[in-house]
Amino acid sequence: MSGFRDLIPHALDGDRRALAKLLSIVERGSAETYQLLAELFPRGGQAHVIGITGPPGAGKSTLVNELIGQARAHDHQVAALLVDPSSPFSGGAILGDRIRMQDRVSDTGVYARSMASRGQLGGISEAAPKAVVVLDAVGFPVVLLETVGVGQAEVDIVESAHTTLVVLNPGWGDSIQAAKAGLLEIGDVFVVNKADRAGVESTVADLNHMLHDGPERAWTPPVLSTVATRSEGIAGLWDAIDDHRAFLTGDEADRLAARRADREIRRAISELLERRAREQIDDAALAEAVDGVVARRTDPWTAAGRLMGSG
Amino acid sequence: MSGFRDLIPHALDGDRRALAKLLSIVERGSAETYQLLAELFPRGGQAHVIGITGPPGAGKSTLVNELIGQARAHDHQVAALLVDPSSPFSGGAILGDRIRMQDRVSDTGVYARSMASRGQLGGISEAAPKAVVVLDAVGFPVVLLETVGVGQAEVDIVESAHTTLVVLNPGWGDSIQAAKAGLLEIGDVFVVNKADRAGVESTVADLNHMLHDGPERAWTPPVLSTVATRSEGIAGLWDAIDDHRAFLTGDEADRLAARRADREIRRAISELLERRAREQIDDAALAEAVDGVVARRTDPWTAAGRLMGSG
Repeated sequence: MSGFRDLIPHALDGDRRALAKLLSIVERGSAETYQLLAELFPRGGQAHVIGITGPPGAGKSTLVNELIGQARAHDHQVAALLVDPSSPFSGGAILGDRIRMQDRVSDTGVYARSMASRGQLGGISEAAPKAVVVLDAVGFPVVLLETVGVGQAEVDIVESAHTTLVVLNPGWGDSIQAAKAGLLEIGDVFVVNKADRAGVESTVADLNHMLHDGPERAWTPPVLSTVATRSEGIAGLWDAIDDHRAFLTGDEADRLAARRADREIRRAISELLERRAREQIDDAALAEAVDGVVARRTDPWTAAGRLMGSG
Repeated sequence: MSGFRDLIPHALDGDRRALAKLLSIVERGSAETYQLLAELFPRGGQAHVIGITGPPGAGKSTLVNELIGQARAHDHQVAALLVDPSSPFSGGAILGDRIRMQDRVSDTGVYARSMASRGQLGGISEAAPKAVVVLDAVGFPVVLLETVGVGQAEVDIVESAHTTLVVLNPGWGDSIQAAKAGLLEIGDVFVVNKADRAGVESTVADLNHMLHDGPERAWTPPVLSTVATRSEGIAGLWDAIDDHRAFLTGDEADRLAARRADREIRRAISELLERRAREQIDDAALAEAVDGVVARRTDPWTAAGRLMGSG
């Protein structure tokens, strides 16, 4: 296998196989990952990263496919990353989404990849922003970052985007669920997809009502309707994304960039500490602590303090 | 405010206000929390903790209400904890669920509480297992632990349960989504709720197929149908939960207890390290690192290493 330093110039030249290898390094999360990121991070900062989240079944993948089409129509190269918390157990079932993305496979201006969690806890929310760093550095002006569900891990992931789309469907239930999942705060643009179904007007109205209910914000998220399967409303959605990108300039852009950097550093610290802890834990001492907790001689938190040298 | 040591005897005597105060301490996560847990953890270990997860709108709350009824019919005291990643912004919208739980408020054998995330990252998945320790210690033989969504945080939470119910609805889409969300591995009992809708047979068949597709396991999760709003299938569900509880004896129980303890200690270690890092980070140095990352002079991972003294 070639080292990542040899791969970088090829990936920068548009070699998709070299790019894929770099992304695999980032996904594995070995020590090499950090050298690679240190090398690539300074080259980035140009991409507009669009996060797409919402409940399963809302039609996010179809919408992403349409947004890829819009990006291409505007002559932008585009990368799409599907962040997928699937597992070996369910490997077959999720192929459907990937295949739809592969419709675009013959267009060299499009690069699509799905990232699976491989069952490591927290692994995917650590790997996804790193993959975005790579895609940004090699020069994609548009990066689409789609999550499968709406959990905290997914919210963490889309927070690294510049513009976040929250995709819902008609039906009051959905907007309550969006509120429950904390999606109202993270969306910059709301999309009521499958707008050919009943209840679209009231869902749009409810969302507008809830979005205006909170503290006043510099940007009030628009609520749009689409029927992604029939390409309806997609051009308007692209315009709304563009409006948000235009909004992200000057002081606002600086403020958001600082917030994102702060969050990224804090997450990198957590990741570093986790890695150190894994290296530091003594297997025999851990086994003994497990016995103690099972027998209820000690509690997990006291045991953790002892293992980490503070008890 | 009285100290937690004064509250414990009252909570053990069944004083619900004292219990509520203990749970609030745990939710706040102050230093007192760990003393409280060290005190209470050795008293626990008797409760059967039942996790309930599944996509928003699957009918989990209604099902929990029915399970509370079953527990009461079998003369068990029961605590129900709704783990709710809501936010101030959406506070009003989620009241519906809580109100339904309050139907039971006049029954002193039932204690219901919802825990919100208050926007702290990871806060809720840290607090929920601690709340279970408290409910277990004060003597509830049955603890129901319901999550709102199906993200990684929720999966983490239900992993602390003894028996995990995965609640889905009729429709092939749902079972694919369950696979995507990694729910197939974590469920001990699968419930296809709203079984008065079309497609229930095929969803049950699909789930059975997928559950038998993986590696052979000592316990094969049953797939049951319910219509929680009409109390249909609930007695059978209770029996299935009871079967799983009976299965969890001897070697199997020891194995699972050790696995749970191992996981709890590791999570406690992460939590401890996060806390230490928060205390350790120098604000001025962090602000400087943020500037460096914004200007792309350095990347977040290198910056984290420097802040934590390794670069």
